[in-house]
Amino acid sequence: MITAAPGDLVQILDHEGRFFYFRLAPGARLETHRGVLRHDDLIGRPYGSKVLTHLGRPFYFFTPPIHDLVNDAKRQSQILFPKDIGLILMKLNVRPGLTVLEAGTGSGGLTLALANAVGPTGRVISYDVRPDMQNIARKNLELAGMLERVEFKLRDIKDGFDESDVEAFFLDVPNPYDYCAQVHRVLRGGGHFGCLVPTVNQVSDLLISLQREWFVLPEVCELLLRNYKTVPARLRPVDRMVAHTGFLVFARPILPSAHEPQKVITAENAESAEE
Amino acid sequence: MITAAPGDLVQILDHEGRFFYFRLAPGARLETHRGVLRHDDLIGRPYGSKVLTHLGRPFYFFTPPIHDLVNDAKRQSQILFPKDIGLILMKLNVRPGLTVLEAGTGSGGLTLALANAVGPTGRVISYDVRPDMQNIARKNLELAGMLERVEFKLRDIKDGFDESDVEAFFLDVPNPYDYCAQVHRVLRGGGHFGCLVPTVNQVSDLLISLQREWFVLPEVCELLLRNYKTVPARLRPVDRMVAHTGFLVFARPILPSAHEPQKVITAENAESAEE
Amino acid sequence: MITAAPGDLVQILDHEGRFFYFRLAPGARLETHRGVLRHDDLIGRPYGSKVLTHLGRPFYFFTPPIHDLVNDAKRQSQILFPKDIGLILMKLNVRPGLTVLEAGTGSGGLTLALANAVGPTGRVISYDVRPDMQNIARKNLELAGMLERVEFKLRDIKDGFDESDVEAFFLDVPNPYDYCAQVHRVLRGGGHFGCLVPTVNQVSDLLISLQREWFVLPEVCELLLRNYKTVPARLRPVDRMVAHTGFLVFARPILPSAHEPQKVITAENAESAEE
Amino acid sequence: MITAAPGDLVQILDHEGRFFYFRLAPGARLETHRGVLRHDDLIGRPYGSKVLTHLGRPFYFFTPPIHDLVNDAKRQSQILFPKDIGLILMKLNVRPGLTVLEAGTGSGGLTLALANAVGPTGRVISYDVRPDMQNIARKNLELAGMLERVEFKLRDIKDGFDESDVEAFFLDVPNPYDYCAQVHRVLRGGGHFGCLVPTVNQVSDLLISLQREWFVLPEVCELLLRNYKTVPARLRPVDRMVAHTGFLVFARPILPSAHEPQKVITAENAESAEE
Repeated sequence: MITAAPGDLVQILDHEGRFFYFRLAPGARLETHRGVLRHDDLIGRPYGSKVLTHLGRPFYFFTPPIHDLVNDAKRQSQILFPKDIGLILMKLNVRPGLTVLEAGTGSGGLTLALANAVGPTGRVISYDVRPDMQNIARKNLELAGMLERVEFKLRDIKDGFDESDVEAFFLDVPNPYDYCAQVHRVLRGGGHFGCLVPTVNQVSDLLISLQREWFVLPEVCELLLRNYKTVPARLRPVDRMVAHTGFLVFARPILPSAHEPQKVITAENAESAEE
Repeated sequence: MITAAPGDLVQILDHEGRFFYFRLAPGARLETHRGVLRHDDLIGRPYGSKVLTHLGRPFYFFTPPIHDLVNDAKRQSQILFPKDIGLILMKLNVRPGLTVLEAGTGSGGLTLALANAVGPTGRVISYDVRPDMQNIARKNLELAGMLERVEFKLRDIKDGFDESDVEAFFLDVPNPYDYCAQVHRVLRGGGHFGCLVPTVNQVSDLLISLQREWFVLPEVCELLLRNYKTVPARLRPVDRMVAHTGFLVFARPILPSAHEPQKVITAENAESAEE
Repeated sequence: MITAAPGDLVQILDHEGRFFYFRLAPGARLETHRGVLRHDDLIGRPYGSKVLTHLGRPFYFFTPPIHDLVNDAKRQSQILFPKDIGLILMKLNVRPGLTVLEAGTGSGGLTLALANAVGPTGRVISYDVRPDMQNIARKNLELAGMLERVEFKLRDIKDGFDESDVEAFFLDVPNPYDYCAQVHRVLRGGGHFGCLVPTVNQVSDLLISLQREWFVLPEVCELLLRNYKTVPARLRPVDRMVAHTGFLVFARPILPSAHEPQKVITAENAESAEE
Repeated sequence: MITAAPGDLVQILDHEGRFFYFRLAPGARLETHRGVLRHDDLIGRPYGSKVLTHLGRPFYFFTPPIHDLVNDAKRQSQILFPKDIGLILMKLNVRPGLTVLEAGTGSGGLTLALANAVGPTGRVISYDVRPDMQNIARKNLELAGMLERVEFKLRDIKDGFDESDVEAFFLDVPNPYDYCAQVHRVLRGGGHFGCLVPTVNQVSDLLISLQREWFVLPEVCELLLRNYKTVPARLRPVDRMVAHTGFLVFARPILPSAHEPQKVITAENAESAEE
């Protein structure tokens, strides 16, 4: 039976279905709107059990999954949704030990998920031009205990990147079409490029830029997440949902070639890649 | 510049946008519908470059991301889609070094993604009652070079599991509601349970069973993936899409308690968990 | 040029994009949150022009389409959405001169659209058990000037209907599966049945009842409406949308036959209708 | 009991769930892939009953709803889907007695639905530049018995329209943004404009043109229709669906005004219409 230990990051569930996150420290106390929780009342008890505040109000306590850490991360900007991040991890082949780049850092929602997925032997290098945003991201990573996996760089990415032969890059800036050349230089041939943009105009501009800068296999998609009310005898979708988080764009860099005109290769129009 | 080396798993892109996968071996040859490709023509060349068959037909070659390995895995049964797997990885907190269980194995699409995500220091234990399915899964994992991360068990799961205190479990069987007690026993308190079922009737039955067997925070959702045609000047969704892959159900096990009636806790009706 | 005349139903557009509805009467005044509008300032002026309040604040004025009358109808209950009503009108073949039945009346949103579609030579017969609901519906129809096209009946529909050989019936009650026999009796062979229910459990129960009561060609569908922000240079879906209004169920009554077992006929499983 | 009469348009349902349409004529015969149906075997029998071919194979026969007539209309071009037409009828306030314009005619799917909705006292005026398309539309309307409600005009609409003070206009051409001035001239103030375009680029261009040509209340939306398999004990969405039929754009013409700058009024940014 796995029990809570000092230093563990825990999430507790309140009566309204919200989570709160903190690290266990002997002697510490958590003030809640429903009374005081003594950390010592959690330490040594099995996860998934109930703990009471000094007012006798119950909380369940758990270890938080990366899904919830991203969802509940502190933010000063729109953050990537777990549904989108999940697909990004698959498309960019993020895995233990990998070095992956992102720009910009934003509030660090994706940074968290990348750091979680590359593990202690991997590395996330995250560029942003705004120190205030990186400070928020830093706090989110520190809480999650993954700060040492991330290297933050404060930089206008029009000046390019320090790295080379990187396998995976995620670009989350308002004008991604302005940086495709820089991104191509940092990626290794056949690597993975991903991007999220909110408007269709950005998608069009990005596709043009990707084609010009020697990316192939462009893909554009969106994911719609629909939740259901969980009453077995009255099962139905919830009333309202998020209609749009952004368009995901993926592509893969190839080596430039002097001897041929550049063509877009996709599953749809791959024939055009023929000489 | 990263170049292809003997033993690498590569994917080549044909003129119709399809991928083919193989491991590089000095002296080996690949017969394609467009001529013969000599492995030696790839070895030592940078990824993302073009290689010609003996008929002069070009292929681009890459290293394959887990997204494509899953998508193109051999199968004798419906396979989980990458869009769903991405969310499952986030919700089940699958990460480097973890031990994760699944049942059934099926054709091993999810097994591949789990093995990729837990890395060389993690472990996937996969139960199925059908040896033929596990053999297909084994081949998919072998191609991907991740067979040693997976332990296959041939077993009717109504007899339960050998493990205990497991953090994450994914159940992909036609009658998941029959195994919630067994799954609860193998999970540690506060762990992560996920399931995919195609029909709403299964969802209802599963929700009832989860509540009875001490799971809280039930969630039911579905993900709709819509792709776009990637012509910048005529950007539009594709004509047809997959309308349904399944309902994803998630929940978390708590410790049974003798002194209280069992109640469902969700973000929607968490108040009902109050004494 | 079409100008506003006394007795016209008009809609005016305020500065927040909301509509207000009233009938023009010489000498009348409308108090708004932005000043007083004199009806005489609208009468005789062309639709689509601007009128000013006594405070100089502008309103555009129009004649309202049925879409807006339904959307902005007074209500004490959930009302059918125009997106769903549009499909219902097509499936139930509602057209000028038709007599159509509905139960229950509810707040009269669908009643409005049916009365509009059957025109002055058609007839809507609307059953409900609650007089308060029918009073709201009556007010909505009166404002729209279509009250005389509708006959309200106050009745528990388990006792059946007065009519026979009706071509189209829409059922909007919580337990539609309890009334399929009654609905079958009132419909003519080959007529059109429609229903809206919020939960999947109701859909299943209704399908069973429809099959038993000699309905064929069952169809179940849902319509998702996604709106876009209308800024040309930043075109994108809105952030949130309605995720669920209900499942639409359609079927067609056939004549009972003594000599054959009852089978469901659908486009999917029509073969099973074979002897 | 309503029985089939000579001259009736009927639809029969075959064993694969497909419909066939024809008009009943005494003595006539229909050759089917399952034997010969004698019209005289249908005439005088109630709708919703079964009729046998000379090989003893059964068909159910019905009167067809407009939904099915549109769905199964002959076509040489993409046709509007009933789901979209339903919403168009609501938004454009199409109703008995109305005169409505459309351009282009295409294969006449929308023409059918408009003619059905305006009834014998209404009128549809349909412009197209291609006589072959209008001939197909004519055949579809003739079968449905609604040809006399429609006036076809063979014309390049850049030259404008003959009519004026029209209440409702639907534009279904590849370059709708080139005709907004012409459409504005034919519409009465406060009328209804609708359009369907497949790409986001067309939407952006159309929005710009509508704003310039004195249209307000622009709306852009799309409708996604998801069907379900109708097995009560295994209820679930179908596997694949139509992902995109087009973006619907609606707007309303106002009177041009010399004294003010033109602004877009929408529910979202209506405040900007303020002086």
